Amino acid sequence: MTDASIDPADPSDRDEHWARRAAELALRGEGLVEPNPMVGCVVVREGRLVGEGWHERFGGPHAEVNALNAAGEGARGATLYVSLEPCCHTGKTPPCTDAILAAGVTRVVAAVADPFPQVAGGGIHRLRAAGVVCELGPGAEPARRVLAPYLKRLATGRPWVIAKWAMTLDGKIATASGDSKWISGEASRAIVQRLRGRMDAIVVGRRTAQLDNPLLIARPPGPRVAARVVVGPIAPDCRLMETIADAPVIVVARSAEEEAACAKLGSLGADVVCLDNDDRVPVVTRLVELLGARGMTNVLVEGGGVLLGSMFDARLVDEAHVFVATKLIGGAGAPSPMGGAGQGTIAAGARLVDAVIEQVEGDVYIRGRLGDGEASSAGA
Amino acid sequence: MTDASIDPADPSDRDEHWARRAAELALRGEGLVEPNPMVGCVVVREGRLVGEGWHERFGGPHAEVNALNAAGEGARGATLYVSLEPCCHTGKTPPCTDAILAAGVTRVVAAVADPFPQVAGGGIHRLRAAGVVCELGPGAEPARRVLAPYLKRLATGRPWVIAKWAMTLDGKIATASGDSKWISGEASRAIVQRLRGRMDAIVVGRRTAQLDNPLLIARPPGPRVAARVVVGPIAPDCRLMETIADAPVIVVARSAEEEAACAKLGSLGADVVCLDNDDRVPVVTRLVELLGARGMTNVLVEGGGVLLGSMFDARLVDEAHVFVATKLIGGAGAPSPMGGAGQGTIAAGARLVDAVIEQVEGDVYIRGRLGDGEASSAGA
Repeated sequence: MTDASIDPADPSDRDEHWARRAAELALRGEGLVEPNPMVGCVVVREGRLVGEGWHERFGGPHAEVNALNAAGEGARGATLYVSLEPCCHTGKTPPCTDAILAAGVTRVVAAVADPFPQVAGGGIHRLRAAGVVCELGPGAEPARRVLAPYLKRLATGRPWVIAKWAMTLDGKIATASGDSKWISGEASRAIVQRLRGRMDAIVVGRRTAQLDNPLLIARPPGPRVAARVVVGPIAPDCRLMETIADAPVIVVARSAEEEAACAKLGSLGADVVCLDNDDRVPVVTRLVELLGARGMTNVLVEGGGVLLGSMFDARLVDEAHVFVATKLIGGAGAPSPMGGAGQGTIAAGARLVDAVIEQVEGDVYIRGRLGDGEASSAGA
Repeated sequence: MTDASIDPADPSDRDEHWARRAAELALRGEGLVEPNPMVGCVVVREGRLVGEGWHERFGGPHAEVNALNAAGEGARGATLYVSLEPCCHTGKTPPCTDAILAAGVTRVVAAVADPFPQVAGGGIHRLRAAGVVCELGPGAEPARRVLAPYLKRLATGRPWVIAKWAMTLDGKIATASGDSKWISGEASRAIVQRLRGRMDAIVVGRRTAQLDNPLLIARPPGPRVAARVVVGPIAPDCRLMETIADAPVIVVARSAEEEAACAKLGSLGADVVCLDNDDRVPVVTRLVELLGARGMTNVLVEGGGVLLGSMFDARLVDEAHVFVATKLIGGAGAPSPMGGAGQGTIAAGARLVDAVIEQVEGDVYIRGRLGDGEASSAGA
C-alpha cells in the first residue's frame, strides 16, 4: 500500500502519506473486527507521528481511541488521520468524536465517509461544529480497498464473496476419476488455511463435500471460526457433521424433498435452510443474501466447479484467489474450476484488477478483485 | 544460466564458469542452426578471455572456429571451452579438431560428448592423440539444457515437442460458443510469434484450423519458417492454403476417406500424408516421428485440446509454454487446454522442472520442461 510516489517531505503529499499509513494499519484488524469496519488512525503534530492505532478487535476500542491513547498529550493541536469517518454514536464504545475533542485535536483528515446509518456524515458534522478543521478524501483509494467488504455489505446487504480454487497448469481441479489430492503444494495450502481463518463462512457444493469429505476448519485456527455451508444434502457421518461442535454447519436444501432428506442433519445440530428453487442462480443469490443478513462480511467459496460457476453466473464473486500448480494431468473428463453458463465472449469476461502474482514453491498464486465488467459483481 | 554461486576467481570454479559461458553463447544460435546443435565456445589464456564464438547459422563455421578466429594468436597455449565435443569429420565445414590443433590450443574442456555417429568420442580421441589435454564434463548441465532438442532427436529420431496454449484464470481456452480472441494480451502474443519464428513445424488440430482459421506464420518473421501441420482435412480456401506460397502446409489424413477428401489440397500444393489409424495416440506418435525423419528439431503444438491431449497421452510433450490471463469467463461447456484420457491420479501427472514464471502485462507466462514422470516424454 506504501506508494513510492508519495513523498512525506513534500507538504502537498503529506496528507496522502499519513492517510495511507492509516489504511495500512487498518488491515491489522483483518478477521478480528468484522462485522465492524477495519479502521486505522495516526496522530501527527508538526509533521511528526505522535501516535498510531487501529481497531484491534470487535467490541474493543476504535482506531481513533487507540491512536489518541498512544499520543497522550501529543494529540493537543495535532492532526488526526483516520481511514473512516469517526463515529458520533454510542455503540459498544462511546463516540470517537468525543474522544477526539477531549484530546484537543484541531484537524481531522478522514479518508472515507461512513455510510453506517447512525454516522453517515454526522461524525464530520459534529467535529466541525466544535471548531475542528475537517477534510474528507485523502487516502480514499487504499482505504476503500480495505473497507470494500464492509462498504459492500452496508450498500447491498451482501457479504464480500471470495472464490478460491487450485488447478493444474492445464486448468483441471481434479483428474477425470476425481483425484484432487494434492494439486497445490503445502505452502499454497497454508495460505488457504490463513484465508479460511478470517472468513465468516466457507461454502462448498454437495459433490465436493461428498468427494473430498473436507473439514473446512482453519488449521492452525485463525482469528475467527467460519460457518461451513454446503449447498445440498450431505451424509450424517461426514467429517463436517462429525466436527459440528467445532464449527457450525449450514445445509442448504433446494426443495421440500431435500429439506426432508436433511431432517437427520438438523437433529444432529446442522442448520438446515430451505431455499426452494430449481434454478442454481437464484439459489446462490438467496444464499449469499442470507449470509449477509446473518451479519457475515466475508464468505469463501471453495468449489466445485458447479457452485463456482453458479456464483459467477449470478455475478456474486468479488475476488478470486487461484493457485496454479506447474503440473499437467490431461483428461477431457477432468473437471474445470468453473462450470455454469459462462460468458459468450472473451470480451464479456471479468478481469482481475490489481492482480497480485506470487510464486509459492511449485505453484503460482494469482489473486485480485473482479473489475467492473459484465460478469463481475461490481457490474451487476 | 549464469550461476551466482560460481566464482571465476576461485580456481576450482574456473572451468565451470567458462563452460557455462560457452553454453550461454550457444543459445544465440537458437532457430538459426538447426538441425545442427547450438554450440558456444570460449578461449581463455592465463585466466583471461581471449576469444569467444558460437555456431551462428546452419552451414556456417562452428563455434570453435569462430572463437579461435576471435582469439587469433591469443589461442596459442590457451584452454578452449566448448559446450559440445569438437567434430573430427568433414561435414559442411572442415573438422574443428584440425582448427584447434592448428591454433596451438593446449587444453580442451568439452561439456558434453557428441553422440553424432561421425563424432561419438572421436573428437576428444583425436585431440588427445595429438597431445592436447582434454576434459569432458564441466558445464554439462547448462549445455545439456541447450542441446536437449538435438540430443533427443539423435537418441530417438523424434523432434523436441513444445506445447503452447493461452487460457483464462478459470482454465478455458475459449468460451462455450467458441470465442477465443483474445485470451492473452498483445505482449504474450508477441512472445508466441517469437516462439513460432524458431520452429520447424507448428501443429494444430482440424477443429482449431476450422474455428480459428489461423495463419501460423511468425509476424515479424523469425530465423526460420515453420511448416504448418494440420491433423485432419481443412478447407481449400482457408488462410493456411491461401498462404501456401509463404510457408508449407502438411495435412495429415487419418483414413483412406480423409486422404481422398484431401486430393484438392494436394493439387493446391499441400503435402498430404496418410497416417491411417483410428486411434489418436498412434497417429500423433507417427506424425512426430515423421517430422523427425524430415530433419525437424523443434515442433510447436498449439492445440486445440483434443490434439494437445493426444500428444500428452502419447508422452510426446517435452516442454510447455502457458499464458494464463487474469480474467474469468466461466462456462461448463467452455473447452479446457488438454483433452485426451489424461492421468488417473494427480501424483501421476507431469511436473514442470525449472519452471520460469513471468508477468507479461495482464498475463502470467509459465514455461518449463516436463520432468521425469509417468506422463512426461522423459519417462516414456
